[in-house]
Amino acid sequence: MNSALQQMVRDCQSWTDKGKVADYIPELSKANPSQLGVSITQLDGTEFYAGNSRDLFTIQSISKVSNFLLALEDKGYEALKHQIGVLPTIRGFNSILELDIENEHKPLNPFINAGAMVTLTFIKGKNNDEKFSRVINFMSQMMGEELSINEAVYQSERETGNRNRALAYYMKSTGILTEDVESLLDLYFKICSVQVHCGHISRFAAVLANQGRDLNNEMSLIKPYHCRVAKAIMANCGMYDASGEFAVKVGLPAKSGVGGGIMAIASGKMGIGVMGPALDTRGNSMGGWQLLERISDHYQLSIY
Amino acid sequence: MNSALQQMVRDCQSWTDKGKVADYIPELSKANPSQLGVSITQLDGTEFYAGNSRDLFTIQSISKVSNFLLALEDKGYEALKHQIGVLPTIRGFNSILELDIENEHKPLNPFINAGAMVTLTFIKGKNNDEKFSRVINFMSQMMGEELSINEAVYQSERETGNRNRALAYYMKSTGILTEDVESLLDLYFKICSVQVHCGHISRFAAVLANQGRDLNNEMSLIKPYHCRVAKAIMANCGMYDASGEFAVKVGLPAKSGVGGGIMAIASGKMGIGVMGPALDTRGNSMGGWQLLERISDHYQLSIY
Amino acid sequence: MNSALQQMVRDCQSWTDKGKVADYIPELSKANPSQLGVSITQLDGTEFYAGNSRDLFTIQSISKVSNFLLALEDKGYEALKHQIGVLPTIRGFNSILELDIENEHKPLNPFINAGAMVTLTFIKGKNNDEKFSRVINFMSQMMGEELSINEAVYQSERETGNRNRALAYYMKSTGILTEDVESLLDLYFKICSVQVHCGHISRFAAVLANQGRDLNNEMSLIKPYHCRVAKAIMANCGMYDASGEFAVKVGLPAKSGVGGGIMAIASGKMGIGVMGPALDTRGNSMGGWQLLERISDHYQLSIY
Amino acid sequence: MNSALQQMVRDCQSWTDKGKVADYIPELSKANPSQLGVSITQLDGTEFYAGNSRDLFTIQSISKVSNFLLALEDKGYEALKHQIGVLPTIRGFNSILELDIENEHKPLNPFINAGAMVTLTFIKGKNNDEKFSRVINFMSQMMGEELSINEAVYQSERETGNRNRALAYYMKSTGILTEDVESLLDLYFKICSVQVHCGHISRFAAVLANQGRDLNNEMSLIKPYHCRVAKAIMANCGMYDASGEFAVKVGLPAKSGVGGGIMAIASGKMGIGVMGPALDTRGNSMGGWQLLERISDHYQLSIY
Repeated sequence: MNSALQQMVRDCQSWTDKGKVADYIPELSKANPSQLGVSITQLDGTEFYAGNSRDLFTIQSISKVSNFLLALEDKGYEALKHQIGVLPTIRGFNSILELDIENEHKPLNPFINAGAMVTLTFIKGKNNDEKFSRVINFMSQMMGEELSINEAVYQSERETGNRNRALAYYMKSTGILTEDVESLLDLYFKICSVQVHCGHISRFAAVLANQGRDLNNEMSLIKPYHCRVAKAIMANCGMYDASGEFAVKVGLPAKSGVGGGIMAIASGKMGIGVMGPALDTRGNSMGGWQLLERISDHYQLSIY
Repeated sequence: MNSALQQMVRDCQSWTDKGKVADYIPELSKANPSQLGVSITQLDGTEFYAGNSRDLFTIQSISKVSNFLLALEDKGYEALKHQIGVLPTIRGFNSILELDIENEHKPLNPFINAGAMVTLTFIKGKNNDEKFSRVINFMSQMMGEELSINEAVYQSERETGNRNRALAYYMKSTGILTEDVESLLDLYFKICSVQVHCGHISRFAAVLANQGRDLNNEMSLIKPYHCRVAKAIMANCGMYDASGEFAVKVGLPAKSGVGGGIMAIASGKMGIGVMGPALDTRGNSMGGWQLLERISDHYQLSIY
Repeated sequence: MNSALQQMVRDCQSWTDKGKVADYIPELSKANPSQLGVSITQLDGTEFYAGNSRDLFTIQSISKVSNFLLALEDKGYEALKHQIGVLPTIRGFNSILELDIENEHKPLNPFINAGAMVTLTFIKGKNNDEKFSRVINFMSQMMGEELSINEAVYQSERETGNRNRALAYYMKSTGILTEDVESLLDLYFKICSVQVHCGHISRFAAVLANQGRDLNNEMSLIKPYHCRVAKAIMANCGMYDASGEFAVKVGLPAKSGVGGGIMAIASGKMGIGVMGPALDTRGNSMGGWQLLERISDHYQLSIY
Repeated sequence: MNSALQQMVRDCQSWTDKGKVADYIPELSKANPSQLGVSITQLDGTEFYAGNSRDLFTIQSISKVSNFLLALEDKGYEALKHQIGVLPTIRGFNSILELDIENEHKPLNPFINAGAMVTLTFIKGKNNDEKFSRVINFMSQMMGEELSINEAVYQSERETGNRNRALAYYMKSTGILTEDVESLLDLYFKICSVQVHCGHISRFAAVLANQGRDLNNEMSLIKPYHCRVAKAIMANCGMYDASGEFAVKVGLPAKSGVGGGIMAIASGKMGIGVMGPALDTRGNSMGGWQLLERISDHYQLSIY
């Protein structure tokens, strides 16, 4: 499998030229656009990989999945669904419009920024420091290794995250958020700055492909229903407004981040992590998307 | 399996009281809201059923799937995708807004009314009479029986379909449609008025679950890729703006119609057809949705 | 005054090169873009003029003012205001959006196409032929001469007016319109095709500047309150989405049409009619606007 | 004139029962809803008044006019118009939507909150303390008396102004604002908290009615063109989304504030200030509006 993956990485390398590294956060713009990597983790924990599969990138929006799962485990789906929708988004990833006109002020889904912020308020913890500890511990457990944040990206997001600040203050003004905004944003930015590599992502995906059971000992880490909820929303909303096209072309629940990572889940089969910081205009890794198309075709993974 | 289905119909019967029969077309408002039926067709053609599974209803928007498949077979996905998007909808099923502001005048997807009208222009035929023949023949082939239209519903739709008329004239004004509007609408209304029962729907769904191969002789009726495209879009857009919630609760590609029918596909396993004219506020059969939740749970069909 | 006007026409001539003749109706695109004319009618009926002041053009949206006044005289403001708003528009002149999302399906104001169609339903007449007679007679009375339609423009509008058709069918579907749509559109297109010259427009404007009294005998033709209502709405909505800028630069209640005409009213002083078929991107005559700026400055006419 | 005004106040008193005091800022909700007052200042400086004409209220959005005039005097209309539009608003007074979708991120006009914030950046001053001094001095000069702020309202706005905070951070994220957001908001809230009475407002209005000349010595305080620009925008946008209806019913350039004040200008004749904290659903003083209708009718002030 490693050599098949190596060939796919070579085949997709040219796509990295067509994309652009995220630049709305200055620190992200320093990423190397020609990087491309992939890892596949089978349900027994075996991992295959190729390309820049051990190079670190910031998790960004892929953290929305782990946050959502932790919030589900802490409070249950019924509690969350009154505050966060499961509607797809057809606009950009941090539109204020979304929030303003749809769904009576409830953020559309947990994978847009507004929904992700509300999700954080459902995670248990007596303050945001404790919440952060719980979040990064949960991520580390899912990904099989102690994780840490990229301090420079975190500072960069904090300084320039005015659109997220606007979203949060808007939700505060409508009463969706009652917490201190700056503290919540700090938590949000910190979580987005956690550093991972493809192997972390594919391992996390494999746990979800295994319906929430540990790959080593089959102990339940996440309730199967919560895995299903997360995967269903990923299938509809995980790739920003390209989710429909991704369903046609790849056909797997997935979540991308502007750090260049994409997590994709083939339930009962494998977890996949790809990375490639050169993004298309909708914020998804160009090379990563291409890799996922080839992997899905090659191993016949589409759920449709 | 029949007795399991009968039990489920009994369990869901009370949900039919909570919905309302569609009344925007006068003729549809005559439907009996307490009807509830289900059919399951396995890939070998065996059918199980319960309730009002042989009562006829008009196919309405479920025809958007067969139209789309026929158009795909006639012209290919690459041709269609330049004129019709694969974006989900978060508004009602016949919003002019959708068309107006999103996606540069391209209808969002083939399963909203605007997209369905454009889909019809891709179906081969020297005029709309010939197109209608091809469409109803294709449907009949998929559903295993000669179908016909409900003349009263057809006339009723023609007379009162002013919102569809507005959509069509709007698309004509922006150049998306170049055909004669009234003739295209006539074709559209006629196809929506085709009468089916649960057994027809489940058989069609079973063909799609069988990747387009005939249930009797395994001959290919529809290209596997076209089946995949249709199912991917159904998963994202098939239940109007409740598609996200349906993904969470049922987890199957499906398409509903305001006649009360829902078609759902468990790839590699079975096709399911339910009917129940009492609709929820988003236009989906209330009893039918409940039946599908139970069937999906019972047979563990969710793709997530 | 004639020589002052002649100088202004010469000064503004070069602006006609910057605009474009309306081309959404094929027949309109045949207009001569370099035409530019002006007439001023004083309250005693004396007229001054310069440039192409006797060349005919179709009245188009300026007819919305006479229609509205006739409807006010027939039914009164209180009756109309429940069906038509007095909200300004900030989008283009025939947006479906306007209608769809604002103001609970009530057209925003009588000077957008949707509002103008609803206005026509308030005009007395046992059928649309009789309504047309009353409308053109009213116009002729205001403008001091027997008017007639441009048959070629009328036919052209009928054939290509699909956006208006969409608007009308949409309003039919929401119940705002109950009349036969094609017949109403025919009336609408016919009225838009009435041919006028600057002298007609300035005379009509002078009657409004005279609070509705005949210029010859001071008999009341239109109630003063109805004149005030029409002028107030013209000041806010008469120049499409350039109404705010026009208020700043010219400061007079005015109404433009895509035929190239603009009517402007200096209450208690004079009526002004300009024409110039070369339009700016918002649908207003470029040369005509410039002329009005100069006239308003020269005679200190701004109401602000 | 005083007795005529006293009678009008009595006639309008009952309207104060129909409105509601603004409650989005806790401190404002303490206002007395039954207050109603009026002042008229003639161009020679003579003032007439009735009712609660000397009771203080916070100036709120009426300050947008003085801010805009000071910015015009400091930088000129051509500079401002590239950053702030002159488009009317048809939504509520602090919608994020306005900002987001119209006019390419430029706030629609200087009298919505977003536009008012941008206006402040055009006022000269080496920091926001100096800007505040210049603003309150300018106001005091216009209104003929040393003004001061209501400290409790100022603190209340600061603490609860999250919607304005969202607007400002959003504009910061799109680059419209480059200043420190919290400092700008502080300036904005402080200016809104300036206390005035009807006599102040009517005197300011009289200066504008006098084309910017001092009422005592006829020295020019504001350029006539800047007065015209401000009045033109007030006529189109001064009464939130009721501006169109106000034009019909009253017919004067005006600006209202949620403190209950309305300033109205009869050019060449008089300035009018009314107050009444009970507001209608669109944020305008109910009793104040009624008073203005009666004053406009009685003295025939409508500009239309």
